[in-house]
Amino acid sequence: MIDQRLLPRELVMVRFQDYRDVAVAIRDMCVRGAPAIGASAAFGMALAARQAVRAGEPLLPALEEAGRILGATRPTAVNLFWAIERMLAAARRLATLAPEAIAAALLAEAEAIADADVEANRRMGRFGAELLPDPATVITHCNAGALATVAYGTALGLIRAAAEMGKRLHVLVDETRPRLQGAHLTAWELMQEGIGCTLIADNAAGHFLLRGQVDAVVFGADRIAANGDVANKIGTYKLAVVAHENGVPVYCAAPLSTVDLKLPRGLDIPIEERSPEEVLYVGKERIAPEGMRAANPAFDVTPAKYITAIVTEVGVLRPPFEDSLSRAFREAE
Amino acid sequence: MIDQRLLPRELVMVRFQDYRDVAVAIRDMCVRGAPAIGASAAFGMALAARQAVRAGEPLLPALEEAGRILGATRPTAVNLFWAIERMLAAARRLATLAPEAIAAALLAEAEAIADADVEANRRMGRFGAELLPDPATVITHCNAGALATVAYGTALGLIRAAAEMGKRLHVLVDETRPRLQGAHLTAWELMQEGIGCTLIADNAAGHFLLRGQVDAVVFGADRIAANGDVANKIGTYKLAVVAHENGVPVYCAAPLSTVDLKLPRGLDIPIEERSPEEVLYVGKERIAPEGMRAANPAFDVTPAKYITAIVTEVGVLRPPFEDSLSRAFREAE
Repeated sequence: MIDQRLLPRELVMVRFQDYRDVAVAIRDMCVRGAPAIGASAAFGMALAARQAVRAGEPLLPALEEAGRILGATRPTAVNLFWAIERMLAAARRLATLAPEAIAAALLAEAEAIADADVEANRRMGRFGAELLPDPATVITHCNAGALATVAYGTALGLIRAAAEMGKRLHVLVDETRPRLQGAHLTAWELMQEGIGCTLIADNAAGHFLLRGQVDAVVFGADRIAANGDVANKIGTYKLAVVAHENGVPVYCAAPLSTVDLKLPRGLDIPIEERSPEEVLYVGKERIAPEGMRAANPAFDVTPAKYITAIVTEVGVLRPPFEDSLSRAFREAE
Repeated sequence: MIDQRLLPRELVMVRFQDYRDVAVAIRDMCVRGAPAIGASAAFGMALAARQAVRAGEPLLPALEEAGRILGATRPTAVNLFWAIERMLAAARRLATLAPEAIAAALLAEAEAIADADVEANRRMGRFGAELLPDPATVITHCNAGALATVAYGTALGLIRAAAEMGKRLHVLVDETRPRLQGAHLTAWELMQEGIGCTLIADNAAGHFLLRGQVDAVVFGADRIAANGDVANKIGTYKLAVVAHENGVPVYCAAPLSTVDLKLPRGLDIPIEERSPEEVLYVGKERIAPEGMRAANPAFDVTPAKYITAIVTEVGVLRPPFEDSLSRAFREAE
């Protein structure tokens, strides 16, 4: 995988032989973005199977332990738990086979998860691209691009697909404090693609929305509750409320693997609290006086009432999302 | 004056002998904050008078030239133009006196402006402190403290006065990208005062508002239109909308010298566009890829409908602000 902490300065690929290193990479945000975390965890489980086979250890207990370790890295993105569960279910289904055969099947399963994510992104890109006018100025928050997924991207996939259709897009990129995924990653991806873009402080989005200079807001999701409430990168909620207040459509792009039907509402989604250092420093630059405290919730919840549509791989879902989400799951089966 | 660009790392006082250096200090944000800019411009005009007297130049033309140069530094804060006009009016009123006497009178006038600002802040602090519950968690944006004024502060003056009354306050400090006045200045002032505070990314304010953890939002103003629309540091608008959406009161604290009755509405207030470098860098740390563009509006406008009350030196003004603002001016005369 690409070490995303080094972008946009350096493009460095890292390889892992031990699933524990994959867990560290997820926790330390070498890889981030809900679908990318899911696929990484799936390959981590496949690695764990290979390691158990080589060590001659019983496979299922080893996989359950790996699932616990990989699952303890980050609490908010549900794709992590979804991928671990899917890998464990596959292992249990095949439990009567030889360990080597199970390990091979788990690698194939991880590859299937990754391939399905790319396909899902391309499908949601096509559905979502239709929603954008031509020309369009779009605000996006954080990074829901190729880096956040296996390839192509969710929210950025939609922008990419619209650009491929020939629509003239300009993207206002929220820098996305504290970790600056917008400035570091989204800006880099859009420049690579040749899509027009301008970096803004997160604070500036309201100025452009109030003045009628924005046609849509698009972002991804880390977890979507059954009622359509969306947990996404901190700041998404403010952006969505202000867009809604100005009559600008708010689109959330996410695969069904990001939807957690077990949670009735967004306030039940666990919100990761990360290190205060991420707020107190930008790179090596300390921004606050010594001794200052900081709070650092990594995600917030945007209530469904501010979301115009959720773009998934089975189509564009509209409110009421209780109905459209459960219908989408039935259709996907 | 304190060079605010060096805080919180260094506390350095600078002195000026030439009004042109005062203009540079305002433009480059060595001094910032609407009332502090106003008082600095007033002392700049007093310096210009002294310089003209020493050079044996005609006083009024020299002062008009100084007014143009000081007025061309920053477009949004109206206190700048208000202070320059007040100094010019005083000079014209005294035009029959000897130049030395006029220069002395202008220094006294600048001192009167500064003293009145301190007194206004203390008065608005007392009025505003009554509005906060006990205990209270308050979000503030940018720096409207002693550094932004001559002393004491507008929004922070209100917090300071409430703390002096014995109210138990905790302040969530918006870091205030791009220039980080919250992290650099507000955090420093609150720590000096011993008032409990926590730094947050601007993006995190919505999270705390949605969860009912905030009792009030308070900020200053750079210019207030006749209808109560408030131009203030970029990001104020998003914060006010989200607070309003959650039923949290939004208080703007500003002296009447910040009100511009000539402008009927906030969208007429000129918004300063500052250098893209302020967004592309944090200190020496570049955050975006080479070649990336950035937009950097320094202020935004919060429509009056999101503002619960404007706290001034003549009392707490409530909507409709057209009426309460014009009544306040009549009472102040």
